[in-house]
Amino acid sequence: MVEAFSLRDFEELARARMDPAQFAYYAAGNADEVTLRENEAAFARRRLRPRVLVDVSALDTSTTLLGQAVAYPFGIAPTGQQGFAHEEGECATARAAGAAGIMFCASTSSTRTLEEIAESCRGPAWFQLYTQDNTGPRTEALVKRAVGAGYQAIVLTVDLAMSGRRDREWRAGFDPSMFRPGNFPEPHADDVPLRFTWRDLAWLRSVAGLPIVLKGIMTAEDAKLAVEHGADAVWVSNHGGRQLDRSLASIDALGEVVDAVAGRAEVYMDGGVRRGGDVITALALGARAVFIGRPVLYALASGGEAGVTRAIHLLADEVRYVMALLGTPRPWDITRTHVV
Amino acid sequence: MVEAFSLRDFEELARARMDPAQFAYYAAGNADEVTLRENEAAFARRRLRPRVLVDVSALDTSTTLLGQAVAYPFGIAPTGQQGFAHEEGECATARAAGAAGIMFCASTSSTRTLEEIAESCRGPAWFQLYTQDNTGPRTEALVKRAVGAGYQAIVLTVDLAMSGRRDREWRAGFDPSMFRPGNFPEPHADDVPLRFTWRDLAWLRSVAGLPIVLKGIMTAEDAKLAVEHGADAVWVSNHGGRQLDRSLASIDALGEVVDAVAGRAEVYMDGGVRRGGDVITALALGARAVFIGRPVLYALASGGEAGVTRAIHLLADEVRYVMALLGTPRPWDITRTHVV
Amino acid sequence: MVEAFSLRDFEELARARMDPAQFAYYAAGNADEVTLRENEAAFARRRLRPRVLVDVSALDTSTTLLGQAVAYPFGIAPTGQQGFAHEEGECATARAAGAAGIMFCASTSSTRTLEEIAESCRGPAWFQLYTQDNTGPRTEALVKRAVGAGYQAIVLTVDLAMSGRRDREWRAGFDPSMFRPGNFPEPHADDVPLRFTWRDLAWLRSVAGLPIVLKGIMTAEDAKLAVEHGADAVWVSNHGGRQLDRSLASIDALGEVVDAVAGRAEVYMDGGVRRGGDVITALALGARAVFIGRPVLYALASGGEAGVTRAIHLLADEVRYVMALLGTPRPWDITRTHVV
Amino acid sequence: MVEAFSLRDFEELARARMDPAQFAYYAAGNADEVTLRENEAAFARRRLRPRVLVDVSALDTSTTLLGQAVAYPFGIAPTGQQGFAHEEGECATARAAGAAGIMFCASTSSTRTLEEIAESCRGPAWFQLYTQDNTGPRTEALVKRAVGAGYQAIVLTVDLAMSGRRDREWRAGFDPSMFRPGNFPEPHADDVPLRFTWRDLAWLRSVAGLPIVLKGIMTAEDAKLAVEHGADAVWVSNHGGRQLDRSLASIDALGEVVDAVAGRAEVYMDGGVRRGGDVITALALGARAVFIGRPVLYALASGGEAGVTRAIHLLADEVRYVMALLGTPRPWDITRTHVV
Repeated sequence: MVEAFSLRDFEELARARMDPAQFAYYAAGNADEVTLRENEAAFARRRLRPRVLVDVSALDTSTTLLGQAVAYPFGIAPTGQQGFAHEEGECATARAAGAAGIMFCASTSSTRTLEEIAESCRGPAWFQLYTQDNTGPRTEALVKRAVGAGYQAIVLTVDLAMSGRRDREWRAGFDPSMFRPGNFPEPHADDVPLRFTWRDLAWLRSVAGLPIVLKGIMTAEDAKLAVEHGADAVWVSNHGGRQLDRSLASIDALGEVVDAVAGRAEVYMDGGVRRGGDVITALALGARAVFIGRPVLYALASGGEAGVTRAIHLLADEVRYVMALLGTPRPWDITRTHVV
Repeated sequence: MVEAFSLRDFEELARARMDPAQFAYYAAGNADEVTLRENEAAFARRRLRPRVLVDVSALDTSTTLLGQAVAYPFGIAPTGQQGFAHEEGECATARAAGAAGIMFCASTSSTRTLEEIAESCRGPAWFQLYTQDNTGPRTEALVKRAVGAGYQAIVLTVDLAMSGRRDREWRAGFDPSMFRPGNFPEPHADDVPLRFTWRDLAWLRSVAGLPIVLKGIMTAEDAKLAVEHGADAVWVSNHGGRQLDRSLASIDALGEVVDAVAGRAEVYMDGGVRRGGDVITALALGARAVFIGRPVLYALASGGEAGVTRAIHLLADEVRYVMALLGTPRPWDITRTHVV
Repeated sequence: MVEAFSLRDFEELARARMDPAQFAYYAAGNADEVTLRENEAAFARRRLRPRVLVDVSALDTSTTLLGQAVAYPFGIAPTGQQGFAHEEGECATARAAGAAGIMFCASTSSTRTLEEIAESCRGPAWFQLYTQDNTGPRTEALVKRAVGAGYQAIVLTVDLAMSGRRDREWRAGFDPSMFRPGNFPEPHADDVPLRFTWRDLAWLRSVAGLPIVLKGIMTAEDAKLAVEHGADAVWVSNHGGRQLDRSLASIDALGEVVDAVAGRAEVYMDGGVRRGGDVITALALGARAVFIGRPVLYALASGGEAGVTRAIHLLADEVRYVMALLGTPRPWDITRTHVV
Repeated sequence: MVEAFSLRDFEELARARMDPAQFAYYAAGNADEVTLRENEAAFARRRLRPRVLVDVSALDTSTTLLGQAVAYPFGIAPTGQQGFAHEEGECATARAAGAAGIMFCASTSSTRTLEEIAESCRGPAWFQLYTQDNTGPRTEALVKRAVGAGYQAIVLTVDLAMSGRRDREWRAGFDPSMFRPGNFPEPHADDVPLRFTWRDLAWLRSVAGLPIVLKGIMTAEDAKLAVEHGADAVWVSNHGGRQLDRSLASIDALGEVVDAVAGRAEVYMDGGVRRGGDVITALALGARAVFIGRPVLYALASGGEAGVTRAIHLLADEVRYVMALLGTPRPWDITRTHVV
């Protein structure tokens, strides 16, 4: 059994089990890793305002995401290369998520095929898309596979105009040849310069015929553009600090995005969520759900599906606990008055 | 003799003498222990404004709490399981408090019976109540025992909608079977879901016939509700950081509670008080008294009754000293102008 | 020769030479020593605004204090028991100060007699007074001795309503019997409770017939009272953090005192001055001069008179340097526009 | 090959290769080195606001400085005594800069002659001037040599009213006799007091007949004076923390200078630039370019010309990366909206 008492504990368990270079690939952030650290630190600076003598005996954590029922207001963020952590890779994670009734996001960069992952997951699942050749045939084929496999939304990652630069990976000797592109058995031709822009969203929507989530929005300006271009949800993320160092912590960018969206789309966030109190803080600031990245990878490395299940249960228990102590029996009872 | 020059020193003395798991039970806070640390750190950020050339030769620290005379504006907070620290447990602490003329609060979760404790204490004493079965017979019996034993007020703890989750206890191997429920010789039936709410306060007041203190109020909203529901005193507390991590430090929540109460009830606080300057800071911000938790447990572990007496005298000397240097010979001379 | 490149360096030199308990007596602050640390840290948070292309070839640091000419806007604060540092004690310090043309303050608590010290000092000198029996004969005798010895002002310390409590001294085993009261060969009768108040200042002024400086003022309120009671100068000080921990850093209290005094008296400060930049920061915020405490003691321990001379020269060079880089050739050119 | 993944890495490489006293000369700052550390720390506190779904496939970093084309909005700051780092000294650095197409600034205090350096540099180059005898013949001769060698602007350093005081150098035993004054084969007569002031700028302009850049401006007041006296560019700098400790970090002074200049001159800055994100932050706050000091010295020590080339390429790649992730394909697309 995994010896972890909180999500934070999985990191050291994973470090002890994993190849150092592959661990570095998971752990690294861009440049000086300021944003990587800030994602957690910014949560620790927020304060919660507990309310007392409220009947919370009927506490219920369930909610919906784009209309789909989920057991908790947190889900599994799309993270790539889960095969580095465990031989079953994304399939193990998807089984754990499905069993717990939480949202699972499969990554374009998975080590298993998106079809295998969809089959493993018995619960709600979305497909995270990296465009391949802008609006070209390779992107289209990938989207159609996701639709065919039954994913219920497309999560388009928008913060990868250039591939991440991460000193820590370089120092650890991480070698891109280690990548196992589960979804692409045949090697690509050389890279197509990315020029996918706002006006291409209509194309994506028409190809997918599914709700579109834009992941990687960090400003009010882009949040407004997202809504104007028909995004069904806006996902505040700095890619776990992996893309642009010195971005705001996600939780610090959430407020302006929520205000700009003004209820016209759902808002999610990821980045630094390690505790039940983090989940509730994000909800208080207007997120409908949060997503968990690295801790899930580390839990997978620590104990495969059982490790991920343990991580989900730990966080679920903490979420229930914080809701009880805030006197908020349902997710929608949590409001801005509950944080300082 | 105990080698302690300030309240802080008892912690290491206790750590050296106690069972590590039981020490962890005393020392732990919820989750990342942010609030545990903040309770002390927030005092250290406050600044005092000394006034000079005032005659303080007639300095007098005494005051009243709900009408009862006490020698100092600090008392002993209700903390459970004092038998972990010393075989005489709460009885030793109560004797030291009584001898010093300060308020003692007996906990529902004591290792000695509330009747034994009341007998040991020759000074003012209150009973801290954890409701057992909401407004059921077990709660009622407990309250009636407290009344019968002569306690002069009921301190109802309101921040325990769910039992505390404390990683540090788990890591240290603390085992709930170590608990020694002095007040409950017979084991309970299984837990009753807690749903004691504001409207049940009237019931408690009628059963007890004593002043009611609400312990665990952290917001202006709840402070107002407390007054409206007839609380005689409001006690600002985050349970020493043991319940909801990322609550405000108690001293940082005090101001909004004092403003909301607006003189309609007495206000107390606990959490992080280690120095005479802390006591005076709380008084300056509107508390009538503060209560001391862990340092008393550690002093008890360090030297039994004599240890607690030493702790009380150290803090008392510091309180007198700070009052002299602020030019405030009586507790009510201390005002908001004395802090920044 | 003393191996010191800045005032900070003398501390370790002194620590290596001195009796640990006596060193602790010099080094200690009240309680948690927050203010002791803050005195320096608050300077480090201030920022200077250099001005360029100004002709500073005629830079001149001299100024006057209560009409007396001094070579630099910094002087030697009154510190007691200099015999702990060096056998020549205050006489060595006074010689160094006199030779450098800076103000020297002799302490009531000196190890040498105030008459010996006055004789050693060839420059401007003030006498720091601790009242002995309020306005009684022992205080009067002391003041008259100071006048007779030629001191040119009385610096009345007003922040000692109670003797300092310093854990660090206790831990180090400092024993009050180590004190060498140079000014009081015969032991006192037991302590008289101090009740020297604002209205007693007129008595002091009439006995002394000298300008009165009030040392230990930390608030606008007391600064106003000082001026209203005829103080010639107000000296912002928290007694080097030795009296009331969690007082503001001296430099942080200076502003409100300067504003309250409004030019009706000279304003000085001590506490945390270690660098030329500190001196200039205090001048920019309205002090006419600053005074140096512990670094002088440490310099004295490091090398007797030569050590103190070295300390003075180091600080003097830094003061000149900062004035040159601020483009302020005279002390009065330094204004609030030079700090942020 | 040099093992460096970011500019920061060169420092340790250099420390391992250089004479400790000469390394200290490079590394040291004035006094407590607060400003030295702040220059970097202040960048780390700024936050960038990434914009997404912008076509950045035509990203172009080139710009102009006083009309000269440069490949990147960063250049090589004038730093002295490059012979301490590598036998080829400034010539190696100049070759690397020229090959990369970035601006190179030759220092008056070079170990090679300004003529040799000019010959080595195949790209844009400016000459940094320390006045020697105010507006006397030695200054004039130096300026005329710079003009003759083909430098395209004079960068007048204005923050050296007195030579820097740096404890770290003294502790490391740095000896001024180690200086190798490449531009002055014959020793000077003794120092002339500096009194070069604003009104002397007209003289310099007439002698040089080149654009004048004022380096070392840290306030709005001096920025205005600079423009009023005809400066073509204002260079915000605290001399890498080497002159006045507790100056603002350069990036924190930039805003007020940009506002004061109000477009009437170009604005540059140096101090603490270590990452692409730093370059872009400075541009967002109104700088047209930034300059790099110590990292270039350390890169030179690490690997001569190849080391400097590696440093330039690392920073260039980071600049391109940050521009891509901000959605700003050209330098002038970067505005105040991109930073918080």
